[in-house]
Amino acid sequence: MNHNYENYVKHLQKISDLNHSGAVLTWDQEVNMPEKGAQFRARQLATLAGISHEMFTSEDFGMLLQKLSIDQTLTFEESKNVEESYRIYKRDKKFSIQFIEERSIAISNAFTAWANAKEESNFSLFEPYLKKVVENVRQESIIIGFENHPYDAMLELYEPGMTTKELDQIFEQAKAKLIPLLQKIKQAKQVDDSFMYKQYDTEKQWNFGLDLLKQMHYDFDAGRQDISSHPFTINFNPLDVRITTRINEKDLAEMLWSTVHECGHALYEQGLKVENYGLPSGEATSLAMHESQSRLWENNVGRSYAYWKCNYAALHEIFPKNLLMITVKDFYKAMNKVQASLIRTSADELTYHFHVIIRYEIEKDLIAGNIQVADLPAVWNKKYKDYLGVDVPNDREGVLQDVHWSHGSFGYFPTYSLGSFYAVQFFNKANQEIENLEGHISKGNMLPLLNWLRTNVHCYGKTYSASELCEKITGEKLNIDHFINYAYKKYSEIYELSSQYEPISS
Amino acid sequence: MNHNYENYVKHLQKISDLNHSGAVLTWDQEVNMPEKGAQFRARQLATLAGISHEMFTSEDFGMLLQKLSIDQTLTFEESKNVEESYRIYKRDKKFSIQFIEERSIAISNAFTAWANAKEESNFSLFEPYLKKVVENVRQESIIIGFENHPYDAMLELYEPGMTTKELDQIFEQAKAKLIPLLQKIKQAKQVDDSFMYKQYDTEKQWNFGLDLLKQMHYDFDAGRQDISSHPFTINFNPLDVRITTRINEKDLAEMLWSTVHECGHALYEQGLKVENYGLPSGEATSLAMHESQSRLWENNVGRSYAYWKCNYAALHEIFPKNLLMITVKDFYKAMNKVQASLIRTSADELTYHFHVIIRYEIEKDLIAGNIQVADLPAVWNKKYKDYLGVDVPNDREGVLQDVHWSHGSFGYFPTYSLGSFYAVQFFNKANQEIENLEGHISKGNMLPLLNWLRTNVHCYGKTYSASELCEKITGEKLNIDHFINYAYKKYSEIYELSSQYEPISS
Repeated sequence: MNHNYENYVKHLQKISDLNHSGAVLTWDQEVNMPEKGAQFRARQLATLAGISHEMFTSEDFGMLLQKLSIDQTLTFEESKNVEESYRIYKRDKKFSIQFIEERSIAISNAFTAWANAKEESNFSLFEPYLKKVVENVRQESIIIGFENHPYDAMLELYEPGMTTKELDQIFEQAKAKLIPLLQKIKQAKQVDDSFMYKQYDTEKQWNFGLDLLKQMHYDFDAGRQDISSHPFTINFNPLDVRITTRINEKDLAEMLWSTVHECGHALYEQGLKVENYGLPSGEATSLAMHESQSRLWENNVGRSYAYWKCNYAALHEIFPKNLLMITVKDFYKAMNKVQASLIRTSADELTYHFHVIIRYEIEKDLIAGNIQVADLPAVWNKKYKDYLGVDVPNDREGVLQDVHWSHGSFGYFPTYSLGSFYAVQFFNKANQEIENLEGHISKGNMLPLLNWLRTNVHCYGKTYSASELCEKITGEKLNIDHFINYAYKKYSEIYELSSQYEPISS
Repeated sequence: MNHNYENYVKHLQKISDLNHSGAVLTWDQEVNMPEKGAQFRARQLATLAGISHEMFTSEDFGMLLQKLSIDQTLTFEESKNVEESYRIYKRDKKFSIQFIEERSIAISNAFTAWANAKEESNFSLFEPYLKKVVENVRQESIIIGFENHPYDAMLELYEPGMTTKELDQIFEQAKAKLIPLLQKIKQAKQVDDSFMYKQYDTEKQWNFGLDLLKQMHYDFDAGRQDISSHPFTINFNPLDVRITTRINEKDLAEMLWSTVHECGHALYEQGLKVENYGLPSGEATSLAMHESQSRLWENNVGRSYAYWKCNYAALHEIFPKNLLMITVKDFYKAMNKVQASLIRTSADELTYHFHVIIRYEIEKDLIAGNIQVADLPAVWNKKYKDYLGVDVPNDREGVLQDVHWSHGSFGYFPTYSLGSFYAVQFFNKANQEIENLEGHISKGNMLPLLNWLRTNVHCYGKTYSASELCEKITGEKLNIDHFINYAYKKYSEIYELSSQYEPISS
């Protein structure tokens, strides 16, 4: 191996060790940490982040990257690694270590405050901490720089190449096509999902969830599942990828979708190449691509009729009383009930995007300074009324429901919708390329699909950007029509809408 | 605050953040980590250790320490901090970062191999990894340097000031006085503890253990208890001090003693001053002092008649069938049954020291090169026969029983005995200073004792060495006669030995 490249790998892997150590501390913070531990945990995370930043932005490393960026002897993957590292180097170089450490502490404190405020359903307990975080984020966007909108700088962090302008267009399209569909559904006879809210024993749910994970080939020797209030996936390396779920005794859906969703994320991380640890080629390419994996499993697999044809019998056996007289068809329909609601993570796959659009609009305005942190509950509640027609009864189920802002993750939410759109586009392609995919799923054989994802998505890491990868796999860029067609077809059947379903092709 | 001193504190606290991050990774490794995670965890821990070492031994920090070491304006505690840091600096400066990282990796690998070898009860699976660790330790002793015996260098790491020569004397005294006592006990009527080995439900044991922890004022908001195969205490800061325990359905004693013992350790860590985080004055002074805290709670409190007068009724209520007809006196005697056995951690408080002496002798010979790693099972088994008269049936219950060597912790075991000896000396003093201590304990009021320990031991950290602290508290240096007198008195009563008990005063 090229000596310079070898040094680059060594240095980057050490930085990765620090970052992943921070991830262990974060996981512990959200799963295990006792209350009083928060104070010092914040500074420990800040120190790790600070040292990582110092190492990544050192002059020596910059010179090494510069040399490697014009090195003609590198392989394609190697030069892609260097290119990506150099891009991040030039961006991160703009940040002082003080800024990094302060941000890290602000985030840790905000997370603790958010958890407490949510518990108490009182936004004002979170407000001063969020204010500090938003100040940091505004500063961050200025430091990173942008051409048209400060929010572009944030998008660059999570979805390189995506812009506010492009997102505006995508969401306009989504609104234009989903609103009429939702209106038709509203006029149709609503499906019955009342049996989902009976008493479902926690331990039995947990065990059923484990079976679903096994069926999806989540590797329990390279990960574990725990409980947390906000489910998440976190990776310390491809051989230790952890997921959390939540269980509500009075709502079976919460466990089902958080489990399948997080497993989709985890399969991506477990599918990255072990030998690329610490390198861009060993990291997921973007958040939207990450979400495409969770959504594909959650929506295109988990909410399909084939999936429940396979798994319903087992569920029925565990909860015979609750599911008495409920057929697999009834269950499938209930799983796909469309109804405007308060909570993003338990929204159906159509109204979901309005939850995202609301957050996207708020974030843009917040970063641009058009609204202030103190305005958030009022703005939030108004938008929920306007877009979804629901009244927000309290902060816990309103503006405090999501953890992201406490983490300083502005620009993150849009990737959820993008991921769902990518997911359908990929699933359609997989369906063309895998013979009888539906048949496999209906027999619980997830390997053909998983292997297709491993080969087409997981193994590349950041070697291709999300949009490059989409083109490589499907022959075209992200095209929301795939999602719209899927939505019209699926929900026309479920809601027995009048037969005017016409595939869109723009 | 003195500017130099301020910089010193800042730098040291950052190093502490790294070390405690490593502690979180270690805790996770032993409590949560999936099997395949071991590979990268090892390198992550090595990177943290390496960076911590680099920061601690940097030239700049050395110069700062030198300046501060002659600074007359520092307070007593400040100058003690600097003195201790400078001592460690001069020692650690001798180690290359390569050595630190290699050792860290060797230890992580050895831990995984040990766990596996113990599971399989096969020393040969551990042997090559232990060999690597022992090579490191031998090298370490040479790098640190020593006057009389290479093992002195190891003792310096855990028990500064202690020497092989002094330990030889202490253990000779212990042997000389304990062997006759043990012989008398052997001839006496054995107490019955058969009821301890009935079926004790795991969850009920867990809950009873939690009650004992609460009674001891273990702060659950600043810690948590989990299960691990080898119980341990670990601290990430004074506000996050975690303990683990183990539960054996067929042996009530395992949970009882591991819980009370680890809690004793944890109370020390929770009692360190929060504002001294990262400084020597915010760290436990030595391992023997640490063990004095766990042993004091385990033996002098937990195995006392007063303790069970208070707690037996609750236990009896939980396990009425198992404890049918067993009086509190019977239970107290069973808790103090003396019998040579295979496993150190479940040994009674007299034969315990022979387990330690065996390890001490083996370690000395191993470090000096008089025996080799391959010899360990044979040497171990022979010594267990010679000292304790027991036949070791397999490696799991023999040479593989303890985790320490996999951690590279040679020189650690002797501190267990020293701690027990300190414990009695301190407890006697507390008994003099606290009115009706026994009465408080028998009512479950542990606060007077805890407060005494907080004020006399916990709050000082490394401001005083173990031997200085002992003298400060008790007016004399470590004096094993306290332990011997305690042992003769207590066990003469329990075993109704003929009345020749005479207090020793040397």
